[in-house]
Amino acid sequence: MRTLVLGADGFLGWPTALHLSDVGHEVGLCDNFLRRRYDEELGVESLVPIHPMDVRLAAWKEISGKSLPFYEGDLTDASFTNAMIEDFRPDVIVHFAEQRSAPYSMIDREHAVHTQVNNVVGNLNLLYAIADVDPSIHLVKLGTMGEYGTPNIDIEEGWIEIEHKGRKDVLPFPKQPGSFYHLSKVHDSHNIMFTCRVWGLRATDLNQGVVYGHATRQTALDDRLATRFDYDAVFGTFVNRFAIQAVLGHPLTVYGTGGQTRGLIDIRDTVECIRLACENPAEPGEFRVFNQVTESLSVADAAKVVAQTYPGPVEIDYVDNPRVELPEHYYRVIHTKLVDLGLEPHLLSESLLHSIYGAVERYADRVDVAAMRPSVDWRRTANPTRQATEPA
Amino acid sequence: MRTLVLGADGFLGWPTALHLSDVGHEVGLCDNFLRRRYDEELGVESLVPIHPMDVRLAAWKEISGKSLPFYEGDLTDASFTNAMIEDFRPDVIVHFAEQRSAPYSMIDREHAVHTQVNNVVGNLNLLYAIADVDPSIHLVKLGTMGEYGTPNIDIEEGWIEIEHKGRKDVLPFPKQPGSFYHLSKVHDSHNIMFTCRVWGLRATDLNQGVVYGHATRQTALDDRLATRFDYDAVFGTFVNRFAIQAVLGHPLTVYGTGGQTRGLIDIRDTVECIRLACENPAEPGEFRVFNQVTESLSVADAAKVVAQTYPGPVEIDYVDNPRVELPEHYYRVIHTKLVDLGLEPHLLSESLLHSIYGAVERYADRVDVAAMRPSVDWRRTANPTRQATEPA
Repeated sequence: MRTLVLGADGFLGWPTALHLSDVGHEVGLCDNFLRRRYDEELGVESLVPIHPMDVRLAAWKEISGKSLPFYEGDLTDASFTNAMIEDFRPDVIVHFAEQRSAPYSMIDREHAVHTQVNNVVGNLNLLYAIADVDPSIHLVKLGTMGEYGTPNIDIEEGWIEIEHKGRKDVLPFPKQPGSFYHLSKVHDSHNIMFTCRVWGLRATDLNQGVVYGHATRQTALDDRLATRFDYDAVFGTFVNRFAIQAVLGHPLTVYGTGGQTRGLIDIRDTVECIRLACENPAEPGEFRVFNQVTESLSVADAAKVVAQTYPGPVEIDYVDNPRVELPEHYYRVIHTKLVDLGLEPHLLSESLLHSIYGAVERYADRVDVAAMRPSVDWRRTANPTRQATEPA
Repeated sequence: MRTLVLGADGFLGWPTALHLSDVGHEVGLCDNFLRRRYDEELGVESLVPIHPMDVRLAAWKEISGKSLPFYEGDLTDASFTNAMIEDFRPDVIVHFAEQRSAPYSMIDREHAVHTQVNNVVGNLNLLYAIADVDPSIHLVKLGTMGEYGTPNIDIEEGWIEIEHKGRKDVLPFPKQPGSFYHLSKVHDSHNIMFTCRVWGLRATDLNQGVVYGHATRQTALDDRLATRFDYDAVFGTFVNRFAIQAVLGHPLTVYGTGGQTRGLIDIRDTVECIRLACENPAEPGEFRVFNQVTESLSVADAAKVVAQTYPGPVEIDYVDNPRVELPEHYYRVIHTKLVDLGLEPHLLSESLLHSIYGAVERYADRVDVAAMRPSVDWRRTANPTRQATEPA
């Protein structure tokens, strides 16, 4: 199976490329290194040092014997995108190559527009390139659970049967995304769904929960194969941040009451979900949606798991929530389709958290504590100067 | 009431500006004249000659005594957008300023990307400018009935109460748009809904049906006040095209079986709907949706109305449908909110069609028959060269 991984230098793109290479896919990689430039812009970096792509690829060749082709370029450049697909001729394309931080998209107007244009245009160019080069290529696209918001009904996998005034239809699940980033993924989903219907493309949209963890079996083989471990307030995710705060002896910072609930997934399960989606493709014309989460937990409960499992004293601080979201809400996510394909989930267990604590301890001297403070306010993004002196 | 009309040089923007000025609003106008450039690109023009903006404004001053300020610029230029709103200080902004043709968006990749970037970025800049200058400004945004597609249940006005597994919520009505243009409007709706929720903006999204007609009370006052009358296959709408075909003695070209049903609205009702939305604003934080249609008719039935009302022989030709859509489908649109505000609809009646026939007869020598043939195929847009020789 020829598998092209877009965004292959990123937190999940890199481990996915290695995992698929390891299980025997012929893997191609693509990236424009924009994620590394965001680090420079924000003045932050991965806790775990990451190596340049050529070092990463040389290490993988040394360990696995496999040379993986790498395409450096930007999906918003349509001629690059077409030429790459024409050259690599994939059976499946795994598309991680988007700006993926909600707070980054909420910094200000420029960042909101950048996020939506970068993500939507890159994805549109990809759809046109697939239709042009080979409409049978299966697109595996990374979406987010944040597309759904927090409806007061169960969150189905992409589609819902609605009965209304005595009639019925199966319709796209209504979306109430919570940031300009989450909105960009909703826009992508609608665009992809349309090309499946009209051009007969085949696609799997993976609405992924919040990913935690720092390593997969392959990235753990050699320091040069390590993937990013983000803990800053813009690109980090909360479980990783809690782990760092516990190790440093700082209070865990929970936004608001912590009653807001999230779908979670272990990084090792993420790469396995991608494999399952690739190896069990959607039918021609099918727009298939999987909810890529393994459990749901309130932010406060996740903090409590860290407090209970860390072998030292842990305090929890409740700070103002910079996001606009309900403090408490119904949240029940249906996620059976990947399990039906064979996923065996890791849950947020002691053993895993201990392995994260170990990684953090090793690199504790690299932590920039200031980078963990929330720096982007959902309410103030529209007018940072005027509203800065007003209550939120 | 200070009302800023964006896209005020267009088919509906111009009559709306005049109608609101006539009823006493202090109206400002904005346009970048992109619509006139699309005509140049496609080699087509309005059947009814239209005058430059300065001539239009001078004529309106002569007739009404009112000088309307005009802002020439592009919403995708954020500093222009902010400066205009800061300068005019509207109570309400009526936003028509988008690429509005489905076939134009389906010409090829460049036109799809242009449509989505132009529409989404212009609208995002507008939302940021409103939040920055004055969040109490009411946004009246033109959407389209084509955002909904053709679900097998009644199409409610933007929101639907869903009961699912014993729980209930009122959620955004699921969208299944039928072109990259319709998709851009869905993206806009999601972005606007988000800013209402998070920033407390107030907005009315008008999901408009297919507009027919050529004049309003104000545009009919003087030839210099005429608005566009598009009949070409890219920017024209089907009722206007049928009227021209009847007058020329050509067969009316119905796509497919003509069983596909559309929501329709008379141009005189459109401008009145906009007035009603402006004068009865949404509440702060409210994202309100009105279905701006007055009746639903299959394309074949609309052709029959023309055949019956035109005082001469009329043939109907059924041609291949260049769009991908169901030939026959359930279609029932709820549209009570504007009627509740006082709308008194004109229906597709003899008297109106006769007035359209009169306008067409006057300008019959300007008709470019070739421009009416469908030139954009939904299936072929992704790969014009390869698929041109294959069956659709």
